[in-house]
Amino acid sequence: MEVYLDNSATTRVSEKVKNIIIKTMTEDFGNPSSLHMKGVEAERYVKEAREIIAGNLKVKDKEIIFTSCGTESNNLALIGMAMANKRQGNHIITTSIEHASVSNTMKYLKEQGFDITYLKVDKEGHIDLNELREAINDSTIIVSVMYVNNEIGAVEPVREIGKIIKEKNPKTIFHADAIQAFGKYKIYPKKLNIDALSVSGHKIHGPKGIGFLYVSEGIKIKPVIIGGGQQNGMRSGTDNVPGIAGLGAAVKETYENFDEKIKRMYRLKDYFTDNIMSLENVQVNSKKGELSAPHIVSVSFIGVRSEVMLHALEERGIYVSSGSACSSNRHGGSATLESIGLSREALDSTLRFSFSDNTTKEELDYTIDAIKELLPRLRVYVRKK
Amino acid sequence: MEVYLDNSATTRVSEKVKNIIIKTMTEDFGNPSSLHMKGVEAERYVKEAREIIAGNLKVKDKEIIFTSCGTESNNLALIGMAMANKRQGNHIITTSIEHASVSNTMKYLKEQGFDITYLKVDKEGHIDLNELREAINDSTIIVSVMYVNNEIGAVEPVREIGKIIKEKNPKTIFHADAIQAFGKYKIYPKKLNIDALSVSGHKIHGPKGIGFLYVSEGIKIKPVIIGGGQQNGMRSGTDNVPGIAGLGAAVKETYENFDEKIKRMYRLKDYFTDNIMSLENVQVNSKKGELSAPHIVSVSFIGVRSEVMLHALEERGIYVSSGSACSSNRHGGSATLESIGLSREALDSTLRFSFSDNTTKEELDYTIDAIKELLPRLRVYVRKK
Repeated sequence: MEVYLDNSATTRVSEKVKNIIIKTMTEDFGNPSSLHMKGVEAERYVKEAREIIAGNLKVKDKEIIFTSCGTESNNLALIGMAMANKRQGNHIITTSIEHASVSNTMKYLKEQGFDITYLKVDKEGHIDLNELREAINDSTIIVSVMYVNNEIGAVEPVREIGKIIKEKNPKTIFHADAIQAFGKYKIYPKKLNIDALSVSGHKIHGPKGIGFLYVSEGIKIKPVIIGGGQQNGMRSGTDNVPGIAGLGAAVKETYENFDEKIKRMYRLKDYFTDNIMSLENVQVNSKKGELSAPHIVSVSFIGVRSEVMLHALEERGIYVSSGSACSSNRHGGSATLESIGLSREALDSTLRFSFSDNTTKEELDYTIDAIKELLPRLRVYVRKK
Repeated sequence: MEVYLDNSATTRVSEKVKNIIIKTMTEDFGNPSSLHMKGVEAERYVKEAREIIAGNLKVKDKEIIFTSCGTESNNLALIGMAMANKRQGNHIITTSIEHASVSNTMKYLKEQGFDITYLKVDKEGHIDLNELREAINDSTIIVSVMYVNNEIGAVEPVREIGKIIKEKNPKTIFHADAIQAFGKYKIYPKKLNIDALSVSGHKIHGPKGIGFLYVSEGIKIKPVIIGGGQQNGMRSGTDNVPGIAGLGAAVKETYENFDEKIKRMYRLKDYFTDNIMSLENVQVNSKKGELSAPHIVSVSFIGVRSEVMLHALEERGIYVSSGSACSSNRHGGSATLESIGLSREALDSTLRFSFSDNTTKEELDYTIDAIKELLPRLRVYVRKK
């Protein structure tokens, strides 16, 4: 049996997505910038994907900028908005548990003279709203908070964050990295006071190499990639039509029968969590139920190094992740796990199980059985060393 | 009959490329940053594509950085190298006929305090090597010249340019935008003294949304997209495995039976050019034979506005381009055509016919016949206005 439980790292492309990609690569393969029919045809795919996405978020078509990935979306949001708004202030607020595409971009912005405040999180991975309120001042131009944490599935209180920001300084831009949240929540940026939202295609059965950034039309932002002026000058380069069309199809499919799918995912997550929690000396770092995302369960198997368990599961066809697996720095420590106060022992023995809407109870039963069988054996092995 | 002669705008993805993309989207769909087999498998595709490309250019694997498109390659090259080398000098040299992804990036660098020199071109689109020699000084950090012009197919004397740069200032970096040249020439950067080379996938039957930048290992360069540290920190973001694998397959296929293919393309280009030149009041702006690229023929149909001819040809299933079609600014003037000294009349009536290795003599005959029939009729129409 093959059980892929690393869906927060990347997902399998769906049939529908695959089909539209093939069509736009081999039949309707034109360049949307071309004046002839082949170009017009190609542009239609881009327009349709844009409409699907804008409709899904209840925003305007022109507020969607296609990028090459979630990382580029975060770079464009943060660098683009920081550079465009630096006359207004040089203060930026973020959290201590952001993905590297935010945290390393913050380091870059610090080098450029911006002042960065990092909010702490509690043991469940949530920021302190009072700390946020106090941190915002007249020169705060951006607050960037991830919607769902990629390592433990913690959901930040985006609605309250949006409110507090607009109360304290209405000029402050609220950016949400929604790369792990989109497809798991219905997100309406206007209602949440979110001014910019980053999304990636390959986390929702869409293709790799595509993402988008929603930017509210009043927000000042500068492009990061410059050239032929595609996408109103906000992102130059020939439109990646197959990627864009594939992303549109993935968004549409993801939000079909949405409530039902998510309910099922929560049921499976809780089932898995209950089973894992019942094991001796095992610590689940993600909350049950709707207190955290429906697709991520972080587990520390005390006494077994995460790589040992990862490869033991791999031998049985079960694929999971140690740390976030979103970074090429595979052996680096995890800022998130440290921030929520995990002990050294727990840190070194943590695995992430991440589900998709295709994950089945049978797959989880197989995984639970494998863990139950492996755990005592691997612990004996460790003790012997 | 459908005749696609806009291959410099974009090409149809080949069967082999399509197949490897499908495989990496639906079977070997892992994230190369994942530690388990699915990740290792995915990484193998990236490694193989890198080897194909590095082998093709006779450079080291680690000298290839995958990007999301040719535009990003040019941005990374110019912004990345300018920022990393600004202590050494602030002077950059380029030409007056670059693609927007270079020329608009130069405008950005000017805003950042760099001093940009634009070299003129003669009526065939070639720079003056003496002007280049005189322009290079101690503070010149980059010379960026396109290998093949995208509008008229002019081939710049890259070998001589490389020699002159290294004679005048060995520290000056030579960047070549090879987006229209790669796949039409065997390019060995080390022999040509090219330090950085930009390439795009979708111009050679590869996928959209992927490109690469070759950067010689001694060259200082900073990343433009920051995050998880993929590709040695030079380009963060989950590797676009299907795009990269597709690009590798496209490079391999393009250079199979290469000399034969290119010889055939030159034969067809000359055949087409001879036929078009024989028409009354028609001006061919591209040189015959190996004095220009094998796949681009720029033609001014004096007395017929380019859009009129473009749409008349489109009605017969023939797809060509007015201007370069690489820009979303579809009605903007052409810097290249102005730079080579075209009259206003010629400028307004110019079309670009661009071939691929799949273009056939039958397709060209059909196109020539259509032009012969349309030209007198469209001219009458214009006179009547």
